[in-house]
Amino acid sequence: MTAPRNRQVILVSRPEGIPQAANFALREAPLPALQDGEILVHNHLLSVDPAMRGWVSAVANYAKPVGIGEVMRSFAPGEVLESRHPDFAAGERVSGLFGWQDYAAVAPSAVTRKVVEQNLPLSASLGVLGLNGTTAYFALLEIGQPKPGETVVVSTAAGAVGFIVGQIAKLKGCRTIGITGGLEKRRQCLEEFGYDAALDYKAGPIDAVLAEAAPDGVDIYFDNTAGPISDAVLRQLAVRARVVICGTASLSSWDPWPQGPRVERHLLVKRTRMQGFLIFDHAERTEGAVAQLADWVRAGSLAYREDILDGIAEAPGAIARLYRGENSGKLLIRLLHQETLA
Amino acid sequence: MTAPRNRQVILVSRPEGIPQAANFALREAPLPALQDGEILVHNHLLSVDPAMRGWVSAVANYAKPVGIGEVMRSFAPGEVLESRHPDFAAGERVSGLFGWQDYAAVAPSAVTRKVVEQNLPLSASLGVLGLNGTTAYFALLEIGQPKPGETVVVSTAAGAVGFIVGQIAKLKGCRTIGITGGLEKRRQCLEEFGYDAALDYKAGPIDAVLAEAAPDGVDIYFDNTAGPISDAVLRQLAVRARVVICGTASLSSWDPWPQGPRVERHLLVKRTRMQGFLIFDHAERTEGAVAQLADWVRAGSLAYREDILDGIAEAPGAIARLYRGENSGKLLIRLLHQETLA
Repeated sequence: MTAPRNRQVILVSRPEGIPQAANFALREAPLPALQDGEILVHNHLLSVDPAMRGWVSAVANYAKPVGIGEVMRSFAPGEVLESRHPDFAAGERVSGLFGWQDYAAVAPSAVTRKVVEQNLPLSASLGVLGLNGTTAYFALLEIGQPKPGETVVVSTAAGAVGFIVGQIAKLKGCRTIGITGGLEKRRQCLEEFGYDAALDYKAGPIDAVLAEAAPDGVDIYFDNTAGPISDAVLRQLAVRARVVICGTASLSSWDPWPQGPRVERHLLVKRTRMQGFLIFDHAERTEGAVAQLADWVRAGSLAYREDILDGIAEAPGAIARLYRGENSGKLLIRLLHQETLA
Repeated sequence: MTAPRNRQVILVSRPEGIPQAANFALREAPLPALQDGEILVHNHLLSVDPAMRGWVSAVANYAKPVGIGEVMRSFAPGEVLESRHPDFAAGERVSGLFGWQDYAAVAPSAVTRKVVEQNLPLSASLGVLGLNGTTAYFALLEIGQPKPGETVVVSTAAGAVGFIVGQIAKLKGCRTIGITGGLEKRRQCLEEFGYDAALDYKAGPIDAVLAEAAPDGVDIYFDNTAGPISDAVLRQLAVRARVVICGTASLSSWDPWPQGPRVERHLLVKRTRMQGFLIFDHAERTEGAVAQLADWVRAGSLAYREDILDGIAEAPGAIARLYRGENSGKLLIRLLHQETLA
């Protein structure tokens, strides 16, 4: 029996704007050697997240950039194959920053958490029970502070964070309006994710349809896009609105810095709070949030959708696919071991 | 003895941008007739405030616009000459929306408060103990939430709100940096208002001097200007910074809507909160704030500066003067009754 190969996706050039397939290369490496204090993880799935754009950008951000020639940083859930650390045992399921590769030898600091939820697929740990779920949970509840009867607008409403936000807002008694692109995603918003209204920004300017859907104004705007969609929503804020800044998916580059309508007057006249959110500030409280999200999923009150690509060869092009909005639900990559590299 | 005349400043045209002297006219009217339930107030001083720009703008704002042909809306402190309301007695000092005129017959709803502070001049009720003081107090403490050792940056640092913000921040143990225009105002910031550093934006771009004055970044930015000054400060926010949006003095018009660098990335990467403030939301808690401010003034720990223009004929040009930044401290108008109209 030959030793297993470790297929890896390497960053080979720094992208201008959105990372494309050509910025990455596939390579094979030997199985990593395990040091004392480390664990060997076999990745079952790889994540594809908007934040990856920042991770490969040379511009200073909240995380150190991935270096040229390094394995692409990624969340991944998998199984511990071998442990040289007392806190972990072979056979345990873990999720963490294990990279776009089959196998990772990592220190415990790379582990986000052990996946302890029962009766739920491992893939859920990447989306609805992973960073997407906890981001939606903490950002909506702590910054948005939804109250029953309020109107909540979500951009990228059918996206991996957005569809969870919409459903939690609904569970909290809010009226929910999703902004999304295309008829199929609009259908998902209404039929799968329970939005009270869904607006297709690709069908034209949303000002009039938003005014009709939110006649008393927008109490909470959960912003995953920035750009013209946000500009339109900000014009229709209610007094004492909260704007959760969670992502900037509509802006393809920050160099040169994008211009837009100044927001100060909206904030002043409407006494609005606008606040940025990063999930990494909330790591210590992850378990409570995941347990609540898992309860909602098992009870059937929190639906989720996954868009699963098969094989590591799909990874290099997956970030661009995400930014083109082609995925339907949480985008992830399944690693099939019978697959061979071309 | 002839009946006293009531000199009034009337809005005669709607300004494009900053209200100018030509948008107003002086006229004389008979003393207003007092109805049951009203009080007759003799104004001693008139206020000049940045918010007046909004009050005469046709664009929807947080207050109904002043109509063409109407007396200009203004805060004013004065003395009750005659009362037909049980809650007020002749001789009491009151402050409220009595307009740019000598005498006002008003219902109690126009009265902001009775001026009950002892051993302090009536003019203080318009500035440090008026809306400027309570704005600085609530906006800094409730939105800014200053903590000892934090770095607080104030724009229009020598302005009627700014110099109070700087001093309260100092009283709360913060390091204070004022941004102001010109050498004389910079001197006031350092010598009169106790700022630890003061930057003159008229001397050139402030990026480098701000970085030097705030090497660990800006924890609180109290923004009275918007515009390029704010753009520079936002680039140097610390993690978990708070931005208090209190005014937009540097923007002369909102039609067309001004463009600027998008703020979402600053808010996201720095987990920053940006929030608009209007003092009118805090009316119920005015007395506690005024009592605290008055204590600080009497104790010598809160200095204030007034720029007093003599005579109602100065009123029409006073808003433009304010926006040109020519005032030094709280701008107000003293009504001298020996003065005659030209």
